[in-house]
Amino acid sequence: MSIHDLAVRMDATAAALEQVLDGLLSHSPLETEAARPPRLLDAMRHAVLGGGKRLRPFLVMESARLFEAADEGALRAAAALELVHCYSLVHDDLPAMDDDDLRRGKPTVHRAFDEATAILAGDALLTLAFDVLADEATEPDAQVRVGLVRILARASGLGGMVGGQMLDLAAEGRFAPASDLDESGIAQLQAMKTGALITAAVEMGATLGEATADEAMALAHFGRTLGAAFQIADDLLDLEGDAAMLGKATGKDAGRGKATLPARWGVERSREHLAALVAHAEEALALFGDKADVLRATARFVAERRS
Amino acid sequence: MSIHDLAVRMDATAAALEQVLDGLLSHSPLETEAARPPRLLDAMRHAVLGGGKRLRPFLVMESARLFEAADEGALRAAAALELVHCYSLVHDDLPAMDDDDLRRGKPTVHRAFDEATAILAGDALLTLAFDVLADEATEPDAQVRVGLVRILARASGLGGMVGGQMLDLAAEGRFAPASDLDESGIAQLQAMKTGALITAAVEMGATLGEATADEAMALAHFGRTLGAAFQIADDLLDLEGDAAMLGKATGKDAGRGKATLPARWGVERSREHLAALVAHAEEALALFGDKADVLRATARFVAERRS
Repeated sequence: MSIHDLAVRMDATAAALEQVLDGLLSHSPLETEAARPPRLLDAMRHAVLGGGKRLRPFLVMESARLFEAADEGALRAAAALELVHCYSLVHDDLPAMDDDDLRRGKPTVHRAFDEATAILAGDALLTLAFDVLADEATEPDAQVRVGLVRILARASGLGGMVGGQMLDLAAEGRFAPASDLDESGIAQLQAMKTGALITAAVEMGATLGEATADEAMALAHFGRTLGAAFQIADDLLDLEGDAAMLGKATGKDAGRGKATLPARWGVERSREHLAALVAHAEEALALFGDKADVLRATARFVAERRS
Repeated sequence: MSIHDLAVRMDATAAALEQVLDGLLSHSPLETEAARPPRLLDAMRHAVLGGGKRLRPFLVMESARLFEAADEGALRAAAALELVHCYSLVHDDLPAMDDDDLRRGKPTVHRAFDEATAILAGDALLTLAFDVLADEATEPDAQVRVGLVRILARASGLGGMVGGQMLDLAAEGRFAPASDLDESGIAQLQAMKTGALITAAVEMGATLGEATADEAMALAHFGRTLGAAFQIADDLLDLEGDAAMLGKATGKDAGRGKATLPARWGVERSREHLAALVAHAEEALALFGDKADVLRATARFVAERRS
């Protein structure tokens, strides 16, 4: 599959996802909700709608499609994962964390609203993700739903994404003089901070598709490798990046002493490592044959993206 | 059941719960976790361990015991609910929210650690709650587990606890000149902010016990009424309270213009209303007969507590 065809497919999925997210963030309260405070909901919508390539949801969808799992339920599961990703950006942007004013070219939630609203909007997005996964509309089989909850919670908690953000702040020297992480320490930090949610995406697809143990293991392997590739590509973009294209200040990760592998390796070695990871990710999907071509193209896309 | 016997029973449950919470917040990572950053875990432990009467977990346990549901699983479900309660306190105490320095006589998490750590510890506690509920160790039946996730997510999200905190900040005049809430507005705010989680506690007990629709409805009715009573008792304590007993500054809710019913009604009328709510809560349990005496005593305890 060409990068062009992939981009068309990603756009179509992102548009379908947008509709699901818009519906989940409706101003009308659900049956057992007393009310949905408008300012809170507006902040949640600001954080979630109109954003990005939706890579993680796309990975849920394409992994589920390997098993011909129904798109409708998979879109809801993909939306839940995206809610978690978006909440993490809202909290990471807070003044007490990375203190960012811009995100995807728009004011961050605490800038557009205020800090208290941003904290609560993040909390509510995280909570809503689990509400969505637990809902029968996502999947009739309770065993599958509870499996999705388990994967998402484990990946995004203290031993995953949140833990990774904590390690990242520690590596910056936030709590004590900066710890000098070695390469395996950086790799672990990033496997937690960004890798865990990317891996969760394909694992959720496997769960929706009721994959065999071998299939699930292959997808998880693909996910971990893709997660590592994604982070290196992201850090390379930051090293080489163009502030206008990204809509946020670049070069600042290095300025803050953020722990990245490209900052140590330089561009050339990082590009080589990235190419190897992509090849490795593609191979991890061997047992799916041609059916996995979209996921393979996604791995190449992640490595080659310029924004 | 006497208040003394109830207190003994609550203490025993709190001690058993403490062990479960301590185990869940172990420094050893779980199988699929890369690592548990020590500082993050220490902050989570600070927020959760050694605290309070554990009313909400007790309600889960005693509701589940109506149906002779196994204590071991119910304790894990109760622990999950308590993790959510504790996360909400950590975030509510933040400088951008209520800016509190003390909680249960100890420094709040952002004081004992720092703001970034407090934000992340809250996030990780919320996430861990859903991980615990989705785990087979809580309950073998996936339908029950996913039901627990649903109840807890719905009660604690934008249409429940988080939404209630948002309405409370709005009522303080945080986002615009203070809105003059009428009594039903205050009641709704508080049904969301504190009532939803108390109601969720008994609903989780009913789910664990695979209650009939009538039984579940009776318990939910009890929970809503108890939640309203709890809030009035809490606001009365604040009106009349003794700073030393509570370990936090009192009288400040009124100073901040917090929306409470006792602040409008005065002590006498509030006490009458509280007594009526307790009687109503006790009656809601009629169909359980004597088996519900512990829950009835709990309603009286909530109304009469002095700290």
